[in-house]
Amino acid sequence: MLRLYDSLLSGNSWKIRILLSQLGLAYDRVTLDLQKGETREAAFRRISRFARVPVLVLEDGRPLVESGAILLHLAEGTPYLPADPYLRAEVMGWLFFEQADLQKAIAVPRVLHLHGLAQERQDDIRRLHADGYAGLEKLDQWALGHAWLVGEHYTVADIALSAYVSLAEQGGYDMTRFTGIRNWLARVRGQRGWVPLLPEVGPTANS
Amino acid sequence: MLRLYDSLLSGNSWKIRILLSQLGLAYDRVTLDLQKGETREAAFRRISRFARVPVLVLEDGRPLVESGAILLHLAEGTPYLPADPYLRAEVMGWLFFEQADLQKAIAVPRVLHLHGLAQERQDDIRRLHADGYAGLEKLDQWALGHAWLVGEHYTVADIALSAYVSLAEQGGYDMTRFTGIRNWLARVRGQRGWVPLLPEVGPTANS
Repeated sequence: MLRLYDSLLSGNSWKIRILLSQLGLAYDRVTLDLQKGETREAAFRRISRFARVPVLVLEDGRPLVESGAILLHLAEGTPYLPADPYLRAEVMGWLFFEQADLQKAIAVPRVLHLHGLAQERQDDIRRLHADGYAGLEKLDQWALGHAWLVGEHYTVADIALSAYVSLAEQGGYDMTRFTGIRNWLARVRGQRGWVPLLPEVGPTANS
Repeated sequence: MLRLYDSLLSGNSWKIRILLSQLGLAYDRVTLDLQKGETREAAFRRISRFARVPVLVLEDGRPLVESGAILLHLAEGTPYLPADPYLRAEVMGWLFFEQADLQKAIAVPRVLHLHGLAQERQDDIRRLHADGYAGLEKLDQWALGHAWLVGEHYTVADIALSAYVSLAEQGGYDMTRFTGIRNWLARVRGQRGWVPLLPEVGPTANS
């Protein structure tokens, strides 16, 4: 069976869980505790060359790293990655844009906020926000004119871009002005099999 | 004929020129002047959604953006991108690593140095160097134990990673300790059809 190594709040790992769910693939989930240094242990470093999650261990035991590469590998031959060469290249282009222009600019301020370091590191956050807002502005312009990032259908590009973008508020981003992004995120969440980052706690579970 | 829009010093565009040369593909090269704002002109924005180089315009007139996506598109079906699904995913993983962990950390200090702003922006450079050295350390460890980034052969992963890494000294990086990287870069430069960023000026041309 497939095995996914992730951490509880990892946005890059979340992307893989969304796609695995939408593909209906069963997998073992191994959630590492970053605070306890579990990604730095020798056994994990043997399957993750840079000691990071996510790692997807294939049925034959070989590990795959880098969320974008894992998404493309799993989506091959499915409706989540078009067969047309031009559309495939477009999907990959959005995945590279996310890693280069958005991921770190959202993830780092988010971690600082979650760890109560936002005040102390406000200069770093301001610089990262400048980068991140520039990327979000580009995405919003696109989303205002297109239902999906590539072609006429939901693809792994929508999965890859929506994960951290939907977590940007946790990193102190003001997302109210990005109406294109907001409506697109609602379409993404409405896709069959989509799963939230954390289990949703309903009223019954709270009572 | 294929048409490549680039700029004179763009490392991301250089990657495409190396692969086009190695594939023996003829193309028109249109070199834009960033100082004159040529990437911001309306005609260019119509083919480059985020007003950036490189753009590869295909024979049918459709434009492709993002250097990683262009490399993968051109390399499909050639020895520069393995057919094996696992090795393909490994190649893509390295391309994502480069965009997430190395490209900006090298490119931004390089631009600041080239524009004479290194002194004024030394705090920014110091922060970017911290990120960049972490990525270079990972790459160097890999290169010490492997001739090529993926499998037993030179692939687009070697092209994509070597471009900015070979320009890191222009961004103030001290590369002397990275012996794995140095030897790997020499192997990359030795590949048939490899081309330098700028035309090499021989002694005759200087005399």
